[in-house]
Amino acid sequence: MNAEELFRNIQRKKSYLCVGLDTDYNKIPKMLLDSKYPIFEFNKHIIDATEDLTVAYKPNLAFYEQMGAAGYMSLEMTISYIRSNYPDIFIIADAKRGDIGNTSRMYAHAFFKTLDCDAITLSPYMGYDSISPFLEIKGKWAILLALTSNEGSNDFQQLELKDTTHLYEQVITTSAGWGSVNNTMYVVGATRAESLAQIRKLIPEHFLLVPGVGSQGGSLTDVAQYGMNDRCGLLVNASRSILYADGTNRFEQAAREEASNLQQQMEVTLRDKNLV
Amino acid sequence: MNAEELFRNIQRKKSYLCVGLDTDYNKIPKMLLDSKYPIFEFNKHIIDATEDLTVAYKPNLAFYEQMGAAGYMSLEMTISYIRSNYPDIFIIADAKRGDIGNTSRMYAHAFFKTLDCDAITLSPYMGYDSISPFLEIKGKWAILLALTSNEGSNDFQQLELKDTTHLYEQVITTSAGWGSVNNTMYVVGATRAESLAQIRKLIPEHFLLVPGVGSQGGSLTDVAQYGMNDRCGLLVNASRSILYADGTNRFEQAAREEASNLQQQMEVTLRDKNLV
Repeated sequence: MNAEELFRNIQRKKSYLCVGLDTDYNKIPKMLLDSKYPIFEFNKHIIDATEDLTVAYKPNLAFYEQMGAAGYMSLEMTISYIRSNYPDIFIIADAKRGDIGNTSRMYAHAFFKTLDCDAITLSPYMGYDSISPFLEIKGKWAILLALTSNEGSNDFQQLELKDTTHLYEQVITTSAGWGSVNNTMYVVGATRAESLAQIRKLIPEHFLLVPGVGSQGGSLTDVAQYGMNDRCGLLVNASRSILYADGTNRFEQAAREEASNLQQQMEVTLRDKNLV
Repeated sequence: MNAEELFRNIQRKKSYLCVGLDTDYNKIPKMLLDSKYPIFEFNKHIIDATEDLTVAYKPNLAFYEQMGAAGYMSLEMTISYIRSNYPDIFIIADAKRGDIGNTSRMYAHAFFKTLDCDAITLSPYMGYDSISPFLEIKGKWAILLALTSNEGSNDFQQLELKDTTHLYEQVITTSAGWGSVNNTMYVVGATRAESLAQIRKLIPEHFLLVPGVGSQGGSLTDVAQYGMNDRCGLLVNASRSILYADGTNRFEQAAREEASNLQQQMEVTLRDKNLV
């Protein structure tokens, strides 16, 4: 999928919502625990309940790895289910990988061939050759951590460099030259909305993946105001607020209501910019 | 395992060798491909052939994830095999993880409970709360990327900060306060031997995990000269040069010879510093 196709999906669904599949065995409704793959079973229900409101799903690898090989199997089944039933959905492996070239090449194979995801989140710390293997596969995306939503982003990302820019700005300007707007995105936390305007000056055209709306307290209105460009340029993620909106057998309906609330707010912001 | 126990294993084996299990399905001897779990089968032979020369094994997650759930199963079997047969071995998951706190907590569970590794490599880009969950489990280690062996380490790790230090130095000095010498190590590439002396001034007591000897061209003598402290303080990794020393049914013997060469060189450097 390229940026134009992603934008067309956003226009059609009037939504730039990404649902994070941070599926925690300890938080899913008890009645699903008897099935052979409860994590997959839960995901399937959530996906069916939200797919028309959503342009992307983002499984968070930690939650699957925590369950070992059985968890990895649930991940494979989830991605395969989305691919077979909802082929226009953009699938992001939230994996935060990044290693020397020959190892990154293996990760690219793992996530783009074995798992058939569209995109993967990457940590930029190891530089160009840790990222480039992900940019070499046509139609696939690298999503680089830039300015994250957590408190620890102050430790290194916001360090001031000799030239008075911050590390996260240097990460963005350096890496923007490695790929294109059709295969590179950046993670910018919704809790950093005040920095979005500054980041938009550096990369007016790139898509941004914005987590931190919902449980982490970021504001969708602020994100849209400072981050939206003329092809939307945003995927806003919500995970826990949708997945665990209700812990009973009403969980699908509650997840849909929560996703629908976000989609409706998103539609308003898209109309404000004349994008739908 | 704490730092003192690791040092005692190094003294007993006269070796600070870590064998990287970067096991590539396409490079293992053909005769193993008929077994149900060829990656595990290969690892088992390599481990049996080298364990007395080795203090640590370091499975590289990319090579297992590349094979999907079946690869993850091979990883579980490999770790379980080491634990059952060679309980004094230090097991490092070379995973380069790091995420917001609740996700890092899941990764800590995945690698320290589900898989029972001793240590995991982590990218520091997301800061304190992305690392601290790994430091909370007694006897387990966080190994932070500092200055890596690849060319891309010039892109960000070596950026000069406003205070004239480099990013990798700031990563080391800031994070050294998060844990202790008993649960924190740093990755410093063997190709950066000239920087080891400088890093030793910042952290004289910490263990360093040093990849890049062998296929990547780093010198063991230089690493020992600039990096060794009075408890050795080094784990030097070799992967491809040992695993693929020979592609025929002599592979175990060839791997042992290669590991033995490194162990003998290590013994000399340990004697030079009166540590054995």
